[in-house]
Amino acid sequence: MTLSALTETKETNAGTVTAQQYCQGMASVAAAVNIVTTSNHGTPAGFTATAVCSVSDDPATLLVCLNRQSSVHQAFSQSRHLAVNTLAAGQDALSNLFGGRAPMAERFSQGNWSTLSTGSPVLSNAAVIFDCRIIDVKSVATHDVFYCQVVAIQEQPDTGALLYYQRGYHTLT
Amino acid sequence: MTLSALTETKETNAGTVTAQQYCQGMASVAAAVNIVTTSNHGTPAGFTATAVCSVSDDPATLLVCLNRQSSVHQAFSQSRHLAVNTLAAGQDALSNLFGGRAPMAERFSQGNWSTLSTGSPVLSNAAVIFDCRIIDVKSVATHDVFYCQVVAIQEQPDTGALLYYQRGYHTLT
Repeated sequence: MTLSALTETKETNAGTVTAQQYCQGMASVAAAVNIVTTSNHGTPAGFTATAVCSVSDDPATLLVCLNRQSSVHQAFSQSRHLAVNTLAAGQDALSNLFGGRAPMAERFSQGNWSTLSTGSPVLSNAAVIFDCRIIDVKSVATHDVFYCQVVAIQEQPDTGALLYYQRGYHTLT
Repeated sequence: MTLSALTETKETNAGTVTAQQYCQGMASVAAAVNIVTTSNHGTPAGFTATAVCSVSDDPATLLVCLNRQSSVHQAFSQSRHLAVNTLAAGQDALSNLFGGRAPMAERFSQGNWSTLSTGSPVLSNAAVIFDCRIIDVKSVATHDVFYCQVVAIQEQPDTGALLYYQRGYHTLT
């Protein structure tokens, strides 16, 4: 491809990236689907997230981004622990349930939930679970970034992966 | 699955997650593959990364994690801008080249490179390119987390996606 061909693709002007353009671009970035959970004073809370990212293996550290306007934000801010449940192939319905507007009791009525170390709910048949202590929070634009030290991991072999790409679910096996 | 069945899966003890256990767990988290680039005083630098994450769409913000011991760390610390080139299906060889130990000149000798707004090298036939200003850096464990405001986006339609999962490449179309 030559430089002239570049101009034929969709290119925004510098500094004028709208939310719509950004979300359109991010639709081309495939991502694992996770249900992120906590338990605040015994009440479980959880939401579906693709904005989860590994940070370091020494010590084992990951991050989760959460909109400060989210209905679950207060629970995560107060509890100081969370679990990342990375979904397996076929768990689309659970992803939709935790990504919608269903009350928490309805969300946790589906799937088999347990706990590992921190008390955050873990989904027994997730592909992999990272049980974490929240060690730091950084506010960036509309979101809080929760930095988390991983204190327990549980894997299920050969579950395949649920992915979100081009505004739809896909599976890797 | 019952609670008793949980004990049959691989579960680490609280607080004793090793780097090996963490990397094994993260192998089950599928991720898009990106080449992250910058240009520092006219010299291009780039590395392959899966640790890229969307933060906010208002303003359009993403983050990139980079080990402070990486050979490219100084370039990114000094330049204050970077581009995330999310790879398309079939770009495994470029991913390997930028993920290995090849000198920078050798890396950028492959592929068609141009610039958009910031001067960071962009890969013409990447699935999507996010050209960014680095607005903040946070040190966490072994890594620096670069917070970036997106100032230009370029997409190529229908390229498919390159993914890394279970220590190998996969494709979504």
